[in-house]
Amino acid sequence: MLLDRRAAIAASAAATGARLTNNAQAQASAPPVARTLAHYITQARFEDLPANVRREGCRTLLNYVGVAVGGSRHETVDHVLKALAPFCGPAQANVLGRSERLDILNAALVNGISSHIFDFDDIHLKTVIHPAGPVVSAILALAQYHPVSGADFLNAMILGVETECRIGNAVYPSHYGMGWHITGSCGVFGSAAACGRLLGLSEQQMVWALGIAASQPVGLKVQFGSMTKSFHPGRAAQNGLTAALMAQQGFTSDNAALEGKDGWAQAVSRQVRWEEITQGLGSRYEAALNTYKPFACGIVTHPAIDAAIQLRNQDGLRPDQIASIELRANPLVLSLTGKTDPSTGLEGKFSITHCIAVGLLFGAAGEKQFQDNVVRDPAVVALRRLVTVKTDPAVRAAQCDLIVRLKDGRIFSRHIETAIGSLEKPMSDAALEAKFLGLTDGILPRPQTQSLIEACWKIEQQADAGAIARMASI
Amino acid sequence: MLLDRRAAIAASAAATGARLTNNAQAQASAPPVARTLAHYITQARFEDLPANVRREGCRTLLNYVGVAVGGSRHETVDHVLKALAPFCGPAQANVLGRSERLDILNAALVNGISSHIFDFDDIHLKTVIHPAGPVVSAILALAQYHPVSGADFLNAMILGVETECRIGNAVYPSHYGMGWHITGSCGVFGSAAACGRLLGLSEQQMVWALGIAASQPVGLKVQFGSMTKSFHPGRAAQNGLTAALMAQQGFTSDNAALEGKDGWAQAVSRQVRWEEITQGLGSRYEAALNTYKPFACGIVTHPAIDAAIQLRNQDGLRPDQIASIELRANPLVLSLTGKTDPSTGLEGKFSITHCIAVGLLFGAAGEKQFQDNVVRDPAVVALRRLVTVKTDPAVRAAQCDLIVRLKDGRIFSRHIETAIGSLEKPMSDAALEAKFLGLTDGILPRPQTQSLIEACWKIEQQADAGAIARMASI
Repeated sequence: MLLDRRAAIAASAAATGARLTNNAQAQASAPPVARTLAHYITQARFEDLPANVRREGCRTLLNYVGVAVGGSRHETVDHVLKALAPFCGPAQANVLGRSERLDILNAALVNGISSHIFDFDDIHLKTVIHPAGPVVSAILALAQYHPVSGADFLNAMILGVETECRIGNAVYPSHYGMGWHITGSCGVFGSAAACGRLLGLSEQQMVWALGIAASQPVGLKVQFGSMTKSFHPGRAAQNGLTAALMAQQGFTSDNAALEGKDGWAQAVSRQVRWEEITQGLGSRYEAALNTYKPFACGIVTHPAIDAAIQLRNQDGLRPDQIASIELRANPLVLSLTGKTDPSTGLEGKFSITHCIAVGLLFGAAGEKQFQDNVVRDPAVVALRRLVTVKTDPAVRAAQCDLIVRLKDGRIFSRHIETAIGSLEKPMSDAALEAKFLGLTDGILPRPQTQSLIEACWKIEQQADAGAIARMASI
Repeated sequence: MLLDRRAAIAASAAATGARLTNNAQAQASAPPVARTLAHYITQARFEDLPANVRREGCRTLLNYVGVAVGGSRHETVDHVLKALAPFCGPAQANVLGRSERLDILNAALVNGISSHIFDFDDIHLKTVIHPAGPVVSAILALAQYHPVSGADFLNAMILGVETECRIGNAVYPSHYGMGWHITGSCGVFGSAAACGRLLGLSEQQMVWALGIAASQPVGLKVQFGSMTKSFHPGRAAQNGLTAALMAQQGFTSDNAALEGKDGWAQAVSRQVRWEEITQGLGSRYEAALNTYKPFACGIVTHPAIDAAIQLRNQDGLRPDQIASIELRANPLVLSLTGKTDPSTGLEGKFSITHCIAVGLLFGAAGEKQFQDNVVRDPAVVALRRLVTVKTDPAVRAAQCDLIVRLKDGRIFSRHIETAIGSLEKPMSDAALEAKFLGLTDGILPRPQTQSLIEACWKIEQQADAGAIARMASI
């Protein structure tokens, strides 16, 4: 995973002072970041996108639709629909996986929530941003009100992902360390950029849209384990769409809302690297670095789950044989997923001990393994109490060692060098399709699912991108 | 003004380490802030409010309705209505000063924007929060959908103001210094608290509402001078109302979203004083410290405008006599209102030189003196170019000296010790009514205005608080 590489780069840059600047320095030397981005977002042509970037865009879209449909029946979605339905506008856009139609702003919110519920969405590993939730939720709803071609849709989507991930790159890791859930706090820019592009904003309007977005960052890491975590990408989608719609009508913001004195970067980060935003636009694509998770929980748990499943499937370990389990892993694993006694499915996603237990018991860590009844299952509880975690900064976040001691004295172990789902070991297209089928099973009729998969792969040829939303609903 | 006193307290506490703690210390020692607040907000009784607090609440309501009606015809409101009208829900609540009716969430947004456009709204001087915008915009819209008595309305309003101002106290000045427009970033809590109280949330639901609000702070100071500044209290109102509605349906957030690791305070402030939130609940009222501005611009400009008007009216100075103008003031005046060459009305509010020029020329600094044509008036431009500002930290923000040198060599000056509109020199009830009439003149029919003023003073006796919104619309 790039997580480690990026941390090393950041640490080294901090030591030399070569690339990181503090905020006082940054403001004095800041390039016109919002203006530069706005120029790029309004001018970049679909025809100039490299083939690999377009292909990764299709994979991003497919994964997004799958997780949004998959999450759509969770009580989190029921609650927000019940709360906001009396105040929604005309039936303009579909709620994926369901029959409700809402105004586009509320549809963007609900679909963004849905897409993040299982923690099974895409991830840009350099920033731990989940790029699709804020961006695709917004433009898919918008496309149902303001019809656009699939090519324009894919172009806007990639520009949105570029915008949020580049801004994330500029403030990571300081911003994340301060407590921000970066998917929401940077995602709002991705949504504003992508929606603004589809609305055909002028460069000045796009500057305003990014500025209005800057005033509305969403998301705190304290919410991990509660429903509000999923609210973050949804609200980011809705806020960015709102910003683009307002800018279109001439609603002004400051031209330097990102980089200026008392602006976004100053408020939400202690360090910033502007060149991450402004350099290589149109030649270097963060959207090509998107990844997809085989397991329905945080990326830091993936090496340990991979190891647990291998021990179960290849060595045939049974729970009743096991005396103790030891994980040796990067300290990030405990700081992000250190809940030792989870009582709900959502909390289970932040419990490395639960992740290991379900890997060993079920050979899987899909959304079913993070339902409340599984988290409370006495067999699961008993197994996760056998787990101890030893952290070591020398172990990279992509690596781990899992050691299982049996009651008869035998010891089995697995070393993971690079977990599945990383950039170096990506999920195949076939694996993505299988994940999609697993997520949509029982929600969408199978023939509809097949057409939907096909439509995502062929989004470039779609005359009307909004068709994806209709096909993903009932 | 208390601005100075608070800064002195903060500086002294920082020096001794007695009351200020950094974030690492704060988390370790944090009391259950959200829970304590939620208990208070859900339990506090109207009957226990001191008479002076209730009376200040009436003044806050009256001032709010006046500024919201007054701002309602500005293009800022036209733009946001045009942008969002296609997506609004049922006609549930009035847009003050206008004929449109929107769903309550969008009405809260638009009325909150309207209330801040002239920078003429109320101000809690310890934090520079404008308390009514986020709180009253939300509960007035809610009261049109969920009818409540005037007494319940006033109680909820005061609890909302307590919540936002106490949270503001806890993080000021660090939070404000980081770049946050504190009215939006703390106002969201005030809205959530007041709406949650009117909805009858349980203590746990109120904890969730505050937590959902915590994930959505709004507002950056970089936006001062653009339309997005007014967006901040509006969006805070809407976000807080959304949070309360979601919490009511069981949408969870972390129980320690304000005070926990990776929570709100950690993300948005470098220092925090929890006791500002938790101590004296129900006995010490921040809502009693609200103030109202006689001039339609930032409070730091008020001493200089007061001096300029005195020089014009009492000494009879005429612009063509003046050779130079010198202001001696606190450094805050230049850092907040240092624009030297404003070109729009909004920018004029952030130009101390413009404020002095209109005071000398017109003897007033109402919203008319901050219209684009006045800012561009050659006579105003010429006069403001004669102004120089000398800052001195020894001059308190409430004080100033204004020295005018005439072409004939004579010198006139005024020393202001405490500007009108401060806690020590508050606007009278009669002055508030006159301000109200000036703001609503030409928008609401005069008989309707008189009934509306009466209804605000007698809110405690109203059977249906939503009537205020209907009376403030056309």
